[in-house]
Amino acid sequence: MLLSLNTATIKRATLAEAARLCVEHGITGIGPWRDVIEGAGGAAAARTVLDDHGLTVTTLCRGGFFTTPDGVDDTRRALDEAATLGTRELVLVVGGLHAGSKDLPAARQTVADALEQLVPQANATGVRLAIEPLHPMFCADRAVVSTLGQALDLAEPFAPHEVGVVVDTYHVWWDPDLFAQLKRARGRISSYQVCDWVVPLPADMLLGRGHVGDGHIDFPPITRAVLDADYDGYVEVEIFNQSIWDTPPAETVATMVERHRLID
Amino acid sequence: MLLSLNTATIKRATLAEAARLCVEHGITGIGPWRDVIEGAGGAAAARTVLDDHGLTVTTLCRGGFFTTPDGVDDTRRALDEAATLGTRELVLVVGGLHAGSKDLPAARQTVADALEQLVPQANATGVRLAIEPLHPMFCADRAVVSTLGQALDLAEPFAPHEVGVVVDTYHVWWDPDLFAQLKRARGRISSYQVCDWVVPLPADMLLGRGHVGDGHIDFPPITRAVLDADYDGYVEVEIFNQSIWDTPPAETVATMVERHRLID
Repeated sequence: MLLSLNTATIKRATLAEAARLCVEHGITGIGPWRDVIEGAGGAAAARTVLDDHGLTVTTLCRGGFFTTPDGVDDTRRALDEAATLGTRELVLVVGGLHAGSKDLPAARQTVADALEQLVPQANATGVRLAIEPLHPMFCADRAVVSTLGQALDLAEPFAPHEVGVVVDTYHVWWDPDLFAQLKRARGRISSYQVCDWVVPLPADMLLGRGHVGDGHIDFPPITRAVLDADYDGYVEVEIFNQSIWDTPPAETVATMVERHRLID
Repeated sequence: MLLSLNTATIKRATLAEAARLCVEHGITGIGPWRDVIEGAGGAAAARTVLDDHGLTVTTLCRGGFFTTPDGVDDTRRALDEAATLGTRELVLVVGGLHAGSKDLPAARQTVADALEQLVPQANATGVRLAIEPLHPMFCADRAVVSTLGQALDLAEPFAPHEVGVVVDTYHVWWDPDLFAQLKRARGRISSYQVCDWVVPLPADMLLGRGHVGDGHIDFPPITRAVLDADYDGYVEVEIFNQSIWDTPPAETVATMVERHRLID
């Protein structure tokens, strides 16, 4: 599997810096976040930068947050940006409970309804809605979709080119049903993302992710199952970690390349 | 459902203090931890204290940690202590990955093997092995059993009076399969424990639990499903939270009683 650099891993870098680091380290894929695209002058300008460096855009991160008032409209804008960037995969973090509500089934229904609203535009733009199940510890505030099985249930009413799923080791590694669901995910895997589970988690649990090999996840069996599900895309390294962000980006990218061998 | 006070909720109190607070607040059940029992002079001495206060011992916390060298032997001692205390339910936190290992299936197999070793003693003592699925964020270091479904799979080879499951709202509230699994749990529910999911989690994620009503969990539907699964025991309030531990125990117990109405 070829490596892709998710820009969140080197949060301080501009798009141009990230693109240059990719080229210098032999990385041919990049998964940008929308704030980095905006910082580069928008999707059209960003695409020029990425094309100039010969990079494949593996995903755009992210749309979603459907349980907030602007979620669907913001995702419509993200679909257009993804199309302009030339990626076929828009990662969705679906959102947590509605503000002031404890009604988990209602939040999940809102997500299903949003997908139905967005699929026509996904088709029109040629961009897939890629549902990312987030670790259950983010259920209240970030994503009421917590397992790959749940993401696949939401995707099932739609064609595989319309709605896909993101498999991020950090979010799914613990799931006793993971390997059964990966079989079921054939044709639906939009992105394979990796980072490691490190304990203890830091105060901000969003930032507890580690370089591949620094934590407790056994990557090769998961990678094999992803490949067995006919995934033929890149493996995207996405790490949220304050101490990695405080490291010079070139050093982080070098580590990422060095750890590639541990993924499969 | 009658209230039971899990002694972890008022961690600073001795067993005698906890027992007195129960009587003063009209609570008739108590779920002690083993360190509190030890502090009271052992199981026989503790039972005298609890009998003197007319308290029902709803659970003993805890055995398990089967992936550590002493796990099975320690759980044998805990089964004896539970029998001496007169409770039928020994809560098990099954343990995380083996030290230095990333082999999750192997850790889960170790748990299954440990149960098989322990069931004869459970039968002999009349104490049930009560598997507690812990939130997936504890998978690496505390419990490789993360869902109620997984706990029931482990329990299934044994009779319902031999191996049961603990339903703790904090650990299971996010699970999209929760209500289906609660139906399946009929006759197996050893304990129903409650506390709330509060965000953001604190630095020590073990201590992020809140009083019922302070967080994001919708308790009544879960309580109804537990009752529908023929559970006729107490509801045990177990909260790990540094600021609650820093509160005078009498105040904590008063809050717990006041929040009872929010559970069902």
